[in-house]
Amino acid sequence: QLISERFGKGSRTVDLELEAQIDVLRDTKRKYENILRLARALTNHFYSMVQTQRALGDTFSDLSQKSPELQDEFGYNAETQKLLCKNGETLLGAINFFVSSINTLVNKTMEDTLMTVKMYENARLEFDAYRADLEELNMGPRDAMTLSRIETAQQQFHIHKGKYERLRSDVTIKLKFLEENKVKVMHKQLLLFHNAISAYFAGNQQQLEQTIKQFNVKLKPPGVDKPSWLEEQ
Amino acid sequence: QLISERFGKGSRTVDLELEAQIDVLRDTKRKYENILRLARALTNHFYSMVQTQRALGDTFSDLSQKSPELQDEFGYNAETQKLLCKNGETLLGAINFFVSSINTLVNKTMEDTLMTVKMYENARLEFDAYRADLEELNMGPRDAMTLSRIETAQQQFHIHKGKYERLRSDVTIKLKFLEENKVKVMHKQLLLFHNAISAYFAGNQQQLEQTIKQFNVKLKPPGVDKPSWLEEQ
Repeated sequence: QLISERFGKGSRTVDLELEAQIDVLRDTKRKYENILRLARALTNHFYSMVQTQRALGDTFSDLSQKSPELQDEFGYNAETQKLLCKNGETLLGAINFFVSSINTLVNKTMEDTLMTVKMYENARLEFDAYRADLEELNMGPRDAMTLSRIETAQQQFHIHKGKYERLRSDVTIKLKFLEENKVKVMHKQLLLFHNAISAYFAGNQQQLEQTIKQFNVKLKPPGVDKPSWLEEQ
Repeated sequence: QLISERFGKGSRTVDLELEAQIDVLRDTKRKYENILRLARALTNHFYSMVQTQRALGDTFSDLSQKSPELQDEFGYNAETQKLLCKNGETLLGAINFFVSSINTLVNKTMEDTLMTVKMYENARLEFDAYRADLEELNMGPRDAMTLSRIETAQQQFHIHKGKYERLRSDVTIKLKFLEENKVKVMHKQLLLFHNAISAYFAGNQQQLEQTIKQFNVKLKPPGVDKPSWLEEQ
């Protein structure tokens, strides 16, 4: 059947509305994968920056103690770098939570729906193949043997029609729930991302910590090296 | 002479105060090289972060137009990332200026003084060698031939004593000027670094731009790819 369709022969059962929705999902997934890639890159660059700020803070501290003539200048720079480092750890927690949630949405939830879509597409192909068989037999001569073959073909046709329709319905339902879930997750995560980043880059430590609490972000204990378990969830 | 000294023989002319100052300079240079290394790392991480923020801004903008159900959420995130990107470029200009100035201080000014120190150390070695020759001849028997050799040795002794003293004086003067220059440069640069970073991480665009003006930081035109010409100066 796939080959007939490739060569432009054979007819194809089409649910235009559903196929449009599936195309939109595939496109959305690609776009969110891009966000995920960029958010992970941001995490890495930001993580490296915070590590460098920590090292700078230590170096400035050391030089403040050992340079009487520039004690103040090294001193306030040390303070600033250390404060940025502390707030940076908190923001990292928020970005990790964002990455982890988008990752779940894209690679678990959307992927799950797309698996059902693939099963649906296979069922559609099989159904159209049995439909084409039946139509061909129906157009041929009728004798005892062909009648029995038509009966078998009809049974197969109904079995695969049922399977196709069940899967079409599964896909429709999953798409509907996915859309709701997507809007809910993205609304929350985009708000968290925005509020955490705004608070951090406004130097508002209190608001940053409040955002973390508000969104129930769990911070990993300091000293744990890489953003890891959050992404694995 | 170097070999005699290595084996603990021969005597060595020592200027304790000057040698202590030279040790301090070598130590300071190492410490400032460390600041330079960290500041360059910060520039690189920060530069990568700003590039990612630009890409995130574009992606959020695009998604804001194409996601009616999440238009606002993508919209305000796009705005934030773009603003951060703009301020980030300005801060990069300030950090580049800091890096460039510390680089000049460490790799031009300090290096120049240390070259004079090396010449001084060689002159000291030569002077002590001729001094040791002369002392040896003075302790030996005196006849016509040795008297003439003593005379030559005395001439050499005075020539190298003069050279040694001239270079010792050069080093002393250079160290004095270097110390003044170091304090002046570092005072200015550490203030710039602190004020620019504080303004940026407080989200204070106006204060950031004011700092840039106050310290005469030349910003490279946007679009120029890497922090380069500033560091080459």
